[in-house]
Amino acid sequence: MDHIELEKVLPAEIEARSFEIITEELGDIPLIPGTEPIVKRCIHTSADFDYAKNLVFSEGVVKHALNALRNGASIVTDTQMGKAGINKKKLAKYGGEVFCFMSDEDVARAAKEQGTTRATASMDKAAALDQKLIFAIGNAPTALVRLYELIREGRLNPELIIAVPVGFVNVVQSKELILKLEHVPSIVARGRKGGSNIAACICNALLYMLE
Amino acid sequence: MDHIELEKVLPAEIEARSFEIITEELGDIPLIPGTEPIVKRCIHTSADFDYAKNLVFSEGVVKHALNALRNGASIVTDTQMGKAGINKKKLAKYGGEVFCFMSDEDVARAAKEQGTTRATASMDKAAALDQKLIFAIGNAPTALVRLYELIREGRLNPELIIAVPVGFVNVVQSKELILKLEHVPSIVARGRKGGSNIAACICNALLYMLE
Repeated sequence: MDHIELEKVLPAEIEARSFEIITEELGDIPLIPGTEPIVKRCIHTSADFDYAKNLVFSEGVVKHALNALRNGASIVTDTQMGKAGINKKKLAKYGGEVFCFMSDEDVARAAKEQGTTRATASMDKAAALDQKLIFAIGNAPTALVRLYELIREGRLNPELIIAVPVGFVNVVQSKELILKLEHVPSIVARGRKGGSNIAACICNALLYMLE
Repeated sequence: MDHIELEKVLPAEIEARSFEIITEELGDIPLIPGTEPIVKRCIHTSADFDYAKNLVFSEGVVKHALNALRNGASIVTDTQMGKAGINKKKLAKYGGEVFCFMSDEDVARAAKEQGTTRATASMDKAAALDQKLIFAIGNAPTALVRLYELIREGRLNPELIIAVPVGFVNVVQSKELILKLEHVPSIVARGRKGGSNIAACICNALLYMLE
């Protein structure tokens, strides 16, 4: 095709071939045993090898998260984009669903009344749910700050916090807050990087590990 | 808050403050005049300054794209996630909408019958639409390859191709194909990086430039 050579890979094999290349290029970079599928999927989603170094896993978090998903935990996101990216069919197989309250009218109203963000108000709404919850936060530092407060106040006990907002204002700090919660299972992308795509892909990596 | 200092920024000012930081850190890196809001929004979305260097803009593309949006062009994405991320309210103000055909049954059937990807079949479906179209491709190299073929065959004349798939198999090559289409307005993230988040944020950057 005009001297641009396309690699001949069958559609069904593209993902496996991508993971091979990632594994090759990671070379000797050490990954925590059991976290490899998550780290590699983040690299697959971003083509950014920084994720080999910036992901922090709390002790035993993968095993705990897999158990939670297997037992029907639901996922709360802070963006519709994150919700769109999560494999909802696989999640439903185990009984879970994905919630995103960001566009809800009651959330917009509460945020306005309280002079806070919709992300903060969304976390309050989620904390009132009576079920096992995984939080996949790829955008709003204020969501993480609110989760920190709710947990400290004993009003929330999440199965997992995926703390991967991206950006420049309070992103780094909000992730460090989550890392201070010693008994809360967490996966954190330390630093500025992350995103709704990363939040969704970590959820999917866990779901695919169940199979 | 336990010695982690949060920056005091009002919710409504977080984005402006982020763009200030990005501008500061870009320093003397030269950006093409008129493309700054797009480049900076990509960095805002990813916290990855590579986008200051890897984005390739065809001659006059920003002006052309803004005109197309102003005149009601619609956007075709290759992921539901990209669709979720685009500001559909702003787009609708000018008469456009967002299409993603990836989950359509007829697309799945066509892909299976032709031994190709759903992304390829989605582009065929889009090419049959009788309206001004912008393609925002953040995931599938096969979508770009098909766009290239459709354009070469004279079956498609898009207003803009946003060519930003991410990944390791045929991603680099598929973007180079789009760059060979000399008379097609394009914004391309050269190399492996990109994603549905980047595709959506380039659409949004253009939409916000209209105001």
